[in-house]
Amino acid sequence: MKVLVINAGSSSLKYQLIDMDTEKMLCKGNCERIGMDTGRFGVKTFDGRHFQDLKTPIANHKAAFQKVTEILVHPKYGVIKDLSEISAVGHRVAQGGDLFKTSVLITDEVKKGIESLIPLAPLHNRPELDAINACQEVFGTELPMIAVFDTSFHSTMPQKAYIYPIPWEYYEKYKIRRYGFHGTSHRYVAHHVAHLMHQPIDDLKIISCHIGNGSSITAIANGKVVDTSMGLTPLDGFMMGTRSGALDPSVVTYIMKQENLTPDEMDNILNRQSGVLGVSGYADDRDVTDAEIKGEPRAVLAHQLMFYQIAKYIGSYAAAMNGVDVITFTAGLGENQPELRYDACRYLRFLGVKIDAVVNDETIHGKEGKVSTFDSQIPVYVINTNEELMIARDTRAIVDKLKYAKTEDKTVIDPEDI
Amino acid sequence: MKVLVINAGSSSLKYQLIDMDTEKMLCKGNCERIGMDTGRFGVKTFDGRHFQDLKTPIANHKAAFQKVTEILVHPKYGVIKDLSEISAVGHRVAQGGDLFKTSVLITDEVKKGIESLIPLAPLHNRPELDAINACQEVFGTELPMIAVFDTSFHSTMPQKAYIYPIPWEYYEKYKIRRYGFHGTSHRYVAHHVAHLMHQPIDDLKIISCHIGNGSSITAIANGKVVDTSMGLTPLDGFMMGTRSGALDPSVVTYIMKQENLTPDEMDNILNRQSGVLGVSGYADDRDVTDAEIKGEPRAVLAHQLMFYQIAKYIGSYAAAMNGVDVITFTAGLGENQPELRYDACRYLRFLGVKIDAVVNDETIHGKEGKVSTFDSQIPVYVINTNEELMIARDTRAIVDKLKYAKTEDKTVIDPEDI
Ligand SMILES: Nc1ncnc2c1ncn2[C@@H]1O[C@H](COP(=O)(O)OP(=O)(O)O)[C@@H](O)[C@H]1O
Ligand SMILES: Nc1ncnc2c1ncn2[C@@H]1O[C@H](COP(=O)(O)OP(=O)(O)O)[C@@H](O)[C@H]1O
Repeated sequence: MKVLVINAGSSSLKYQLIDMDTEKMLCKGNCERIGMDTGRFGVKTFDGRHFQDLKTPIANHKAAFQKVTEILVHPKYGVIKDLSEISAVGHRVAQGGDLFKTSVLITDEVKKGIESLIPLAPLHNRPELDAINACQEVFGTELPMIAVFDTSFHSTMPQKAYIYPIPWEYYEKYKIRRYGFHGTSHRYVAHHVAHLMHQPIDDLKIISCHIGNGSSITAIANGKVVDTSMGLTPLDGFMMGTRSGALDPSVVTYIMKQENLTPDEMDNILNRQSGVLGVSGYADDRDVTDAEIKGEPRAVLAHQLMFYQIAKYIGSYAAAMNGVDVITFTAGLGENQPELRYDACRYLRFLGVKIDAVVNDETIHGKEGKVSTFDSQIPVYVINTNEELMIARDTRAIVDKLKYAKTEDKTVIDPEDI
Repeated sequence: MKVLVINAGSSSLKYQLIDMDTEKMLCKGNCERIGMDTGRFGVKTFDGRHFQDLKTPIANHKAAFQKVTEILVHPKYGVIKDLSEISAVGHRVAQGGDLFKTSVLITDEVKKGIESLIPLAPLHNRPELDAINACQEVFGTELPMIAVFDTSFHSTMPQKAYIYPIPWEYYEKYKIRRYGFHGTSHRYVAHHVAHLMHQPIDDLKIISCHIGNGSSITAIANGKVVDTSMGLTPLDGFMMGTRSGALDPSVVTYIMKQENLTPDEMDNILNRQSGVLGVSGYADDRDVTDAEIKGEPRAVLAHQLMFYQIAKYIGSYAAAMNGVDVITFTAGLGENQPELRYDACRYLRFLGVKIDAVVNDETIHGKEGKVSTFDSQIPVYVINTNEELMIARDTRAIVDKLKYAKTEDKTVIDPEDI
């Protein structure tokens, strides 16, 4: 069974075709600058072929999907003979709110649900819904399409973790609460580390650190999310590439007053000009590291701050679960920044955490595995996250169930079943 | 040596006269509703005499100080014969910014410094400065007066703890950073628990939980603050009686947009209508407990949330210091809410923390001491905070130094010297 996985933004569309019999990626690619004068389109195949067009107009998501269909069966760059080989499409959707606690088959009702959540995630759910519609126009509505939500893995959080201590009416009126994001990544990592440890996920207390441009840390006990650092939006939590994380709310209102900013302007500053960028002047961690090596004090500070905040989150989630059995690092920085892992874990020596400096330094660029010493009381793993594979697995699971049962409730699956 | 301690608000003035030879409180009292139609004025003496006038106009801080001088030498309610017995006055000042890293003798220059910090703490520094001036009018400028800052104990924090990950210019232009508050309380508690443990404070990693209407948690290693939960303002940190603590900044901007609120209105909601009040409908913890006993779900939730957030802070500060040797609870709730201490510490069993339920239940209403079991790996103490005594100690120390040395730099003392 071949599954096409789609991750759409307002001006971009990432796609990946996965053969679910082997769980191997057949090809992946990107449409960028959708709706602009010149778009970019590319593909890379499992066997090293690649194609890129940096100056092709892509009017909208529908045009993007048409390009995808062409390349998938292309004589030179294609990986399948016919589009009918694709059994299903899995769509990443950011915000499932309290409507979608699991992945679901996309129906008209599901689309209405995704639409109803646009106010909570305007920058995500709107283009994702557009992409789903465009995808159905191109592939037809007969092809099963599944929505996999960034939030749904977090839906097991208890109220004490998701309620913000603000007037209750805002929770009731506007559904303001912690939702959490990166759920598909945390779910993949949690299952994968349990597999690597040869332990059932039900016996583990996992702290999963997804550290990229956007970062979140999640506490997972017995396979269920107990708490997570992102909240109503992906701005919550700790310092990221360009985002501040949680703040003294008076910092927000104070700056707004001093600079005479609207809420949207303030939101923009805290999302795009803050975090590592705000402190050091650099957003990409490789630039921060270069500047740190040159001795720029604010680059040094930005790293110290971020590593310190990560360590504090791990400490707090150890308390949340009354212990921790394994700590994992994933995503751009988690997988490629040994300094981060080493320095953050240095704060955790009191828990018996010990990093193997040599192994840690070597575990980058696609390597994964344990980076703690043999006598570390809590093992620390680097895991290469694979949200696309997780989306494809959910997609396959739902499609498989559909084949055997046509009753409506069977279209909703529990991720635990996968 | 007798020291008068003053804690002034915009419409209130708390005072306490302390005999520093014995460190005993001679009398304490309150002027309330200053500047309103009818004020309230009262005193309680060390030997049980007390006086209260609930309907006396108190025009301003000067009038309040005049009432204080009258009652101190009053034939029936007085505790001294003559005002000349008072050797010095210690004033609590909330915000010392980065100007005042220790307690100082109040000079014209110091007053200018306090004034310059008003933008950072308008509700505090303004009335405190007014009170200092009124006090000098009544007692004369010859009487040494000392300013003791809520923030100064926190001035040892490293940058990684006090820099917010927002654009750097806001730190430079507006001095937006974490300052921390309750410093005098945390300092008192830290020294007192070291004393009770018969250990030098320099050898201890202390997590001090000041839980009242306003709450903050501070990590203190070797007698120096490493991190603290309150920040630019006392709104930062975790859930309090009516304050939200730190939030996803998007929650702030989202509500502002939905409800069309100004920054000041939003600030007010997060300071006065949030926290335990926002979740449960009750601000005073005794009311929350009553409602919890009656089974009101939001009262139950408010407690769960608060205790959980406290536990997470303790976990994060254990990471900040790479360990913890003692946990302390103080202030209204810390001293009187055994459920809070028990439930918060239940999250910390993985650190070997064990509360003695019986002793814990008994340690209320002015009792203090260890509430953990004998085999708890980390002792937990209840300490009755005494900010007034701490202010009086600083005041005495500075006055003592003044007597022996007249050089200007000797007017600044290091709290470590006390
Ligand atoms: N090989 C690498 N070495 C160091 N840092 C890397 C490497 N690859 C990616 N990163 C860092 O990871 C971050 C992006 O992470 P990523 O998970 O791709 O972000 P997101 O998915 O949130 O956009 C960037 O700061 C980048 O510098
Ligand atoms: N005897 C008590 N039993 C239970 N709670 C108490 C008791 N005394 C005070 N409190 C609680 O402590 C809180 C006030 O704490 P306090 O430290 O006085 O606050 P602050 O100084 O920040 O105004 C209130 O919520 C109150 O209910």
